[in-house]
Order: sequence, then C-alpha cells, then structure tokens
Amino acid sequence: MQTARLETFADGVFAIAATLLIIDVTANAPGAALGAELRHAWPQYAAYAVSFLTIGIMWVNHHACMQLIERADRRFLFINIALLACIAFVPFPTRLIAEHLRDDGLRAAALTYGLTLTITSVCFFTFWFYASIGRRLIAPDADERMVQGISRAFRPGTAIYAGATLVALLSPIASVVLFALIAAFYVVESSVFARL
Amino acid sequence: MQTARLETFADGVFAIAATLLIIDVTANAPGAALGAELRHAWPQYAAYAVSFLTIGIMWVNHHACMQLIERADRRFLFINIALLACIAFVPFPTRLIAEHLRDDGLRAAALTYGLTLTITSVCFFTFWFYASIGRRLIAPDADERMVQGISRAFRPGTAIYAGATLVALLSPIASVVLFALIAAFYVVESSVFARL
Amino acid sequence: MQTARLETFADGVFAIAATLLIIDVTANAPGAALGAELRHAWPQYAAYAVSFLTIGIMWVNHHACMQLIERADRRFLFINIALLACIAFVPFPTRLIAEHLRDDGLRAAALTYGLTLTITSVCFFTFWFYASIGRRLIAPDADERMVQGISRAFRPGTAIYAGATLVALLSPIASVVLFALIAAFYVVESSVFARL
Amino acid sequence: MQTARLETFADGVFAIAATLLIIDVTANAPGAALGAELRHAWPQYAAYAVSFLTIGIMWVNHHACMQLIERADRRFLFINIALLACIAFVPFPTRLIAEHLRDDGLRAAALTYGLTLTITSVCFFTFWFYASIGRRLIAPDADERMVQGISRAFRPGTAIYAGATLVALLSPIASVVLFALIAAFYVVESSVFARL
Repeated sequence: MQTARLETFADGVFAIAATLLIIDVTANAPGAALGAELRHAWPQYAAYAVSFLTIGIMWVNHHACMQLIERADRRFLFINIALLACIAFVPFPTRLIAEHLRDDGLRAAALTYGLTLTITSVCFFTFWFYASIGRRLIAPDADERMVQGISRAFRPGTAIYAGATLVALLSPIASVVLFALIAAFYVVESSVFARL
Repeated sequence: MQTARLETFADGVFAIAATLLIIDVTANAPGAALGAELRHAWPQYAAYAVSFLTIGIMWVNHHACMQLIERADRRFLFINIALLACIAFVPFPTRLIAEHLRDDGLRAAALTYGLTLTITSVCFFTFWFYASIGRRLIAPDADERMVQGISRAFRPGTAIYAGATLVALLSPIASVVLFALIAAFYVVESSVFARL
Repeated sequence: MQTARLETFADGVFAIAATLLIIDVTANAPGAALGAELRHAWPQYAAYAVSFLTIGIMWVNHHACMQLIERADRRFLFINIALLACIAFVPFPTRLIAEHLRDDGLRAAALTYGLTLTITSVCFFTFWFYASIGRRLIAPDADERMVQGISRAFRPGTAIYAGATLVALLSPIASVVLFALIAAFYVVESSVFARL
Repeated sequence: MQTARLETFADGVFAIAATLLIIDVTANAPGAALGAELRHAWPQYAAYAVSFLTIGIMWVNHHACMQLIERADRRFLFINIALLACIAFVPFPTRLIAEHLRDDGLRAAALTYGLTLTITSVCFFTFWFYASIGRRLIAPDADERMVQGISRAFRPGTAIYAGATLVALLSPIASVVLFALIAAFYVVESSVFARL
C-alpha cells in the first residue's frame, strides 16, 4: 500500500487542528473597553502560539518519519489514525488552559493538556517503532543512520511530557511554562544542531 | 476522468469531518470545579474517540476502493459527493450522543446516529458496486481477488448498522455500545486477519 | 505557472465549505423532548443536503474546467480566489434559510442565498471565459468540442440563479424549492445525458 | 528535504483560515426583521471579503516563492510554521473589526488587525530571504531575475502594513480603509503590470 493518501489525510488533520485553534480565541467587550480586554486576553494568544507550534513540530516529525517510510499496512493506517485523533484533540485542552490560566482551574487544565500530549507521544512512539523495527515499512534505500537518529530522538519524548504533566500536581503554572519551553527548545535544538 | 482530485477532495472532507468533532467537546466550570467537570464530561471523549475512529475506518475503506478504481464518470462523482455528505454529517449525531448519554434523549440520539451510519453504508455500498460491477471503473491490472474481497467485506455493512440502530428501540445504551464495538471489531479484524 | 497548487487550494476550500455546513445543524432539547426536536429540525437537514450538493456540483464543474486548463496567470489566480470566496460564503445563507424556513424571515434569507449563488455563477462564468476565450489558458491538446461544451453549459447559469432569486420576491418558499430543484436537475441531467 | 508536503500543509492552512472567516459572519433577528438586520450587517461581509482576499494574496505570494524554492531545511520548516500561525490568526482580528466598525472599539480592533498583518509580513520577509540569500534553497535552474523580482516586491511590505497600522492611532476608519486599499491595489498592480 502506498503512503501518498496517508500523507494527504494527515496533512489535512494537522492543518485543520492547528487552524481551528483560532476559533477559541475570543475577546468580548463593548466599545472603548475593547483595548483593555484585548490586553487582558494575552493567555489566549500565548496558548494559541504554543499549541500551533506544538502541532507544527509534530507535523515536522511526521514528515521526517514519512520520508523514510515507503509502505503502509492496515495496522499502520490505524496507528496513524489514533495518532491523528490525539493531535486533533489538542484544541480542547488548549482552550482549557487559555480560559483558566488565572484561576484555580489551571491544575485540571494543565493535567488535561499534559495527558493529551503524553498519550500523543505514546502514539508517535508506536507509529515510528511499528514502522522501523526490522525496517518493516522503511524504504530499502533509506539511510540506516537517519532511521537510528529518529529512533534516538523519539525515545525520551513520552518521559519528558509525562514529567511536565506530573509537575502540574505541584505547580500548574510551572507545568504550563514547561510545555512552552519544550516546544521552544525543540525548535532551537533541531534548527541549530540537527542536520537532516 | 482521472481520480486524483476526487481523492484530494475526499481526503479533505474526511480530515475536516474528523477534526471538527473536537469543536463539540466542551467543559465549562468555574475555577477549582473544573477537575470534576472534566471527569464528568467523559461521554464527550468517548463519543469523540468512537466517531474519529469510525470516520478513520471509512477513510481506510475509501482508500482501499480507490486503489483499485482507475477512472471516474459523472455519476460516480455524484455518488462520491453523497457519500461525503453522509460522512460530513457524523459530527452532528456524535454531539447528540455525547450530550444525552445520561438522559432520556439517548434513544433519539442513538437512532439519529445509527440512521446516519446506515445511510452512509448504503452510499458506500452504492459507491463500490457502481464502480466494480462488470469492473466498470476498475483498473485493468487490478487483482480480481482483491475486488471480490472488498465486495465480500462491504456486503454485511448496511445490515450490521441497521441492526445496531434498531437495538436503540429496545435499549439505547446497548445500541451505543454496539456502535463502539463495531468500530473496535473492525480494527482488530482487519489488522489481525486481513492481509492487503 | 502550473495549476497543481491552485487545485489543492481550491479542493481545500470546497471541502471545508461543504463540511462546515454541519456546524450550523443543531437541535437542543432536554431529555425525552429530543425526538420531537429532531423531527422539527428537518429544514436544517434539507438545507445541509441542498448546499452540500450545490457545493459538490460546483466542485465537479471546477474539476471539469481544470482538466482542460493547463496554465494560470496572476489574473486567473485572483478570479479563482474571488470564486472561492463566494463558495466559502455559502454556509452563511444556508444557515439563514434553515433558521427561517418557517417564519417571515424567509424572504430575506432566500434573497441572500440566491444573491450568493448568482454572484458565484458570475464568478464561475468569468473564471471559465477568462481561461477559454482564444484558448488563453487551455491545454493545446484539449478537445475543442469539450471546451465548447463547457461554454454552452455555463452560459445559462447566471440567468437561472438570478431568476430563482427574483422568485423570492413573489414567493420565498417557491424560490427555495427552485434552488433544490436546480441542484437535483443538474445531477440528473449531467449523470443521465452528459458523456464526458 | 523535498517541499511537496510543506506545500500541502500550507495550502491546507491557507484554505482553512480563509474558509473559517465565514463562521463569524452572523445575523440574528426574528422573522420580518431579518432583512433590516442583513443590511445592517454589511461590515461583516466587507471584513470577510477583505480578509479572504488578503489571505488569497498571501497564498499567491507563497505559491510564487515555492515555485523557485526547491529544498527545505529544518529552520525553513519552522519559519514556514510561524508564517502559517500568523495567517491562521487573521480570522480573529477580522471578527473584531466586523463587530466594532461602528463603535469606539474600532481603534483597538484596527491596531490588532494591523499588528497581525505587520507581524505576518515580517514572517513572510524572513521566509523569503532565508530561502533566497545566496540562493540557499533556490532551485539551480530558477531565473535570477525572478528571484530578484520577488525580493524587490517583498521589501516594502512590512513598512506599508506598519504604516497603515499606525494610522489607526489618528483615525481607525482610515486605517481600515487602507487595509482594503492595500489588498485591492495589490490585485490590480500584479494583475495589470506583473508578468510572471
């Protein structure tokens, strides 16, 4: 089975999940009060930016995997669907964090956000190792060092997100800052150091 | 007529219908009450998961059909549009079930959900048999055993969904559990036994 | 300039405009009253079906045009964007008709719907004749009879939609029935008689 | 790294951001009052048209850049994601302008809209110059005059949008008219004079 339509479908879900984030950005105030309301709504812009970037990073990783993967079987299609269901879920906890950044609901919001990203990284792990173990779905001409490089990069993902999620039990705000830092670190690290 | 744009359009509708499901997942509660509200909202997550998976399965099936179909005529384009209209309708009854899982509205919600999936499977049946009877739109080099295999797999679909829908008249909750089991069974069956 | 990305972008807008129609389908009622509410909401399903079909027909026509068009210039890209802006607007008057089918607002709703489709068909007319006059953007190997056939099919479109819109001044309900009949007639006519 | 999936993902975000604009177009009025309400809602249609056109123009520009760009590296993928995050943000300030065109909130709305477009044009500037400086990601056979032409066309963009944004401090309505004129001017200029 070819992978072209898997990629079209995945690109669609990534693009929509990222773009739908804007639906939840709102600022309602009558007349001249709008300016103050817009400044007050900064958690929404921050949540939008972090989630868009996080979904963008996942798209980059999905892209990197699919460049080495040549075939798909039924199980791989369903693993991919489970992964996409997690990614399409991200707008929901994003909205929760944006709405509760300044009240007591932040702990529950951060746990939901973190749990979503932890499960997503488990799906991503499964997605990649199902394809790469024994080079099951890998293109014959794919460079083994690149396959190993992706495996190495994916291994700590689940632990990192699970850790940042658990931090929410002690300090919800620290947990939320960690989610932003993980995304920022990933961009800097893979831009500055990685050579693909 | 080539089928490339039919597939792009279909992939778009599948991806959007699946991703739009998240818009209806909501949890509103002030401050510390958010945690309890989020746990209480589990029917929404379950409905999201089952519907995302169901749309994903339909995408896999559409994909499997299109690998054997080489051409399209006008009638086939319109059958495809009717099929996509059914799939894009799924978020509506999903929302109904999520909202009414714990009240007396579940019967009406389950009937609506089941009716939608039953009509969808009639469209899918028409889609495939219009293309495959006499190999009308099938690629000349497509393996006849694969064509027969899909025909065999599609035949019971409408009866299964119609049956699960009628169960809602006796027990709405049993009907809803059946919809989830049908999706789960399909994934297990086609992953473990099917060899494509 | 190649037309591949024009088609991807257009397919995206068609798919999203059609799929977004479901967001406006709603039925709110507590408990056992849901069944009655769902039956009462039939104008919403009908409006969804007619608009999905109408957008689907426009996609089929766009598809048919693009099979003969080989190149694009800047002006053509902007005409295409204007056409897509009209198509992406369709969910708004659809919602108006669904909400006002049984009250005095139907005249305004039908005029808005009809005006949208009339302007859309003017854009479609411009889209096709800009590309086809003197075979400006037509592929050299495209069959001249097919080019002429599309031109012939497109010519009455604007007058038909303008006529159905004006009917709303006399009878809004007749106008709405006409919009449904135009879509249905198109499917039957192009499926039964046209040979592409 | 190839650019095909970058384009699919980008086309998805452009198409969805443009099409989502319609969600915010609303007109609520009972019965016969709908006609007056629909006429009163004209700022929403104007905002929809200007923003759809503006996103369309950005798509045309993205398209023009990608025709000369052959490769992508990690940094370029992240610059592209930042650019898409800006474009997907446009529906939010569009909604603000449509809602506040006739009240004291217009200044804040116009500043938000202008700031969004200014940051977007900074991202676009970075996107293009990252790819084109030293022809880093440019196809070897791309015409140097076309590369220079795009560079020349992109240079004033940020200053123009920053200027139109600052005008909002003096006159919000003049600022909003400028945003519409910039889009209209671009279409006329690139259609009439540019030859690509």
